[in-house]
Amino acid sequence: MTSFDFESLILDIPDYPEPGVVFKDITPLLKDPDGFAAVVDALADHFADCGVTKVVGAEARGFMIGAPVAYRMQVGFVPARKPGKLPRETFSQSYELEYGSDALEVHTDALSSSDVVLMIDDLAATGGTAAATAQLIEQTGAKVVGFGFVLELEFLHPRDELAKACDAEVFSLVSVA
Amino acid sequence: MTSFDFESLILDIPDYPEPGVVFKDITPLLKDPDGFAAVVDALADHFADCGVTKVVGAEARGFMIGAPVAYRMQVGFVPARKPGKLPRETFSQSYELEYGSDALEVHTDALSSSDVVLMIDDLAATGGTAAATAQLIEQTGAKVVGFGFVLELEFLHPRDELAKACDAEVFSLVSVA
Repeated sequence: MTSFDFESLILDIPDYPEPGVVFKDITPLLKDPDGFAAVVDALADHFADCGVTKVVGAEARGFMIGAPVAYRMQVGFVPARKPGKLPRETFSQSYELEYGSDALEVHTDALSSSDVVLMIDDLAATGGTAAATAQLIEQTGAKVVGFGFVLELEFLHPRDELAKACDAEVFSLVSVA
Repeated sequence: MTSFDFESLILDIPDYPEPGVVFKDITPLLKDPDGFAAVVDALADHFADCGVTKVVGAEARGFMIGAPVAYRMQVGFVPARKPGKLPRETFSQSYELEYGSDALEVHTDALSSSDVVLMIDDLAATGGTAAATAQLIEQTGAKVVGFGFVLELEFLHPRDELAKACDAEVFSLVSVA
């Protein structure tokens, strides 16, 4: 396990994208060679013994972390995309936002019942996006074995939401109480 | 150099997203463990001796290839994002689409004049997006040393457009004449 100080490379941006919200900017961590490698290695190492066969990342920041974790684990990568981005038949899963709703999609042949999936994203806030991604993955017949995040906002209780979606381990590199 | 048959895992989708266009679907290549590793290794190996200090990937498919190439090369990753996605001060570069225009942005501190950049994307079609990304990178003072693509549509002459933007090597895993 690395002892990299991830928090030192995550910036707090007050009042973004709207007043009262503190945005967590991970771009300084991504551009730091040691920081980026430590993120990928720590997530991949944590789930190394879980029999993972595919990593799923949610559009778009989940691609930046999930794809290298898949590479490091020597498994395939499946993007969970916003509606209208995938050209063939898809499964779709909608989820609620503060105002309105959104959806994520995967091709119907992206995963099968023999797949064991690690879902990766940069941030667990309410857990709504990750829970929807888990439901999307389970539509394919695959099993979700874990959720890996760079950052978890514990005060928004994402683990409660994830526990409703599926029984899988949750691991975050940085937790904000 | 790998001899992986990349083309066997790239699907032609006729008339997507509009009639007369053949969309190149790389998701079967991404989800194949050997294919995905071969893509990342081949791009990283090709530019291994160029002194690359950062990989830039364009939103969103460029993130899926660029981030693991950065990890493999042991350098940082910088996302070139659509407008409104980055929370701090940015450089912006607009580019023409068939109808209208779009833009890509990076934080002003994402790169510096000491950086040597490899730009990675899934597809070079007209080359417009990659050329705009190169111009964006050069706004930061950094030097673009190469462009790496999974797929290049030679019949749209992307190298002509890229040559106008900067003097950098272009390398593609699959070329469609």
